[in-house]
Amino acid sequence: MTSKPLPLAGTVYGVVMNDRVSVARLGAAAAEAPYKGAPRAPVLYIKPANTLAAEGAAVRLPQGEARVEVAATVGIVFGAPAARRTPADALETVAGYLLVADLSLPHASYYRPAIREKCFDGACPVAARVVPVAEAGTLAHLTLHTFFDGLPVAERTLADLLRDVPQLIADVSEFMTLHTGDVLLVGVEYQSPQAAPGTKVRIDGGALGALAFSIAEEAR
Amino acid sequence: MTSKPLPLAGTVYGVVMNDRVSVARLGAAAAEAPYKGAPRAPVLYIKPANTLAAEGAAVRLPQGEARVEVAATVGIVFGAPAARRTPADALETVAGYLLVADLSLPHASYYRPAIREKCFDGACPVAARVVPVAEAGTLAHLTLHTFFDGLPVAERTLADLLRDVPQLIADVSEFMTLHTGDVLLVGVEYQSPQAAPGTKVRIDGGALGALAFSIAEEAR
Repeated sequence: MTSKPLPLAGTVYGVVMNDRVSVARLGAAAAEAPYKGAPRAPVLYIKPANTLAAEGAAVRLPQGEARVEVAATVGIVFGAPAARRTPADALETVAGYLLVADLSLPHASYYRPAIREKCFDGACPVAARVVPVAEAGTLAHLTLHTFFDGLPVAERTLADLLRDVPQLIADVSEFMTLHTGDVLLVGVEYQSPQAAPGTKVRIDGGALGALAFSIAEEAR
Repeated sequence: MTSKPLPLAGTVYGVVMNDRVSVARLGAAAAEAPYKGAPRAPVLYIKPANTLAAEGAAVRLPQGEARVEVAATVGIVFGAPAARRTPADALETVAGYLLVADLSLPHASYYRPAIREKCFDGACPVAARVVPVAEAGTLAHLTLHTFFDGLPVAERTLADLLRDVPQLIADVSEFMTLHTGDVLLVGVEYQSPQAAPGTKVRIDGGALGALAFSIAEEAR
């Protein structure tokens, strides 16, 4: 499935509802049972090793699936273990940033983060190179552009994160050690565009470079 | 935190509600909103690398936590990659079985499998040795006994799994490749006993051996 070597060797963690656009899109649903409010602590999910796909990969969807949601995001790549960091010293553990496409099968419920939907083989294509922090600059200046077959389908600013990178590392590393090579995604937009088999996807991440992959054509 | 080398190097996956006792304990709650029924496909969760703790470890709870739920279970350890296996050929990928304690912070909601609650550092103590299938025999003959400070607190049979080992591997590997060294837990009992800091835990797994660890005394 992969066409280039992967630039990382750890586990990828993601966080939902970390931007103002997503909270606005979720809207009233966040106030319904059983939670009756937006999450106050980071709600995390995991993309384990089987989900990693390299630049240029053709990702095959699980049997019976005709659509996949493609969410452009950025991974914080750890160059040193992060345990119980404060926002003030969190960035010391960061090796750089990585452009990532977080793939999910569409599913009805926001409330049950299903492993099948987010963790099928190839559900986490990553760019070929980790860009050092000094080179990438502040994420708040970046906008990610997603194209399906050359047509623009989504534009996402990183200026509206609810928890910025230092705060996110502090909140997660309070209970969970992030090891060297692990990746923490800064969040995906709720309701990102959906691609069908055969789609060529490209994400332009400005200073973070680009990421291209495709959704495999044939059913398996 | 660890006192012995770990017998595995992959990711640990778990499944909830895979036994008749748990379904009975959950009872009417499974029929409430938003799901209105017990899950029909395996509901999985992940215990990433930071959760692994070796035989003899003293596991420190996250700050502010005074109790931890201790669920004795068995991990299926993969000796070969398992992708799209059928129940008939699933066991060919299994290297053996491993006695595991799946630790969770008590939380109110069955519906939001929270990462903080299940994935804090040390939340997955494992026995020192993977027992080959031929030596372990059929899991259905095993009973796991859990002791807190020498007193019996739980007894759990493996005869009542809703999905047995071959079926579980087939259902999960349909969408997710389990790699060599990965572990798939056969399920934990809903509402397992809770331990306080300072508790010495021992799990006796019959042919699978035993697993001992403790919950660290002091808050960090």
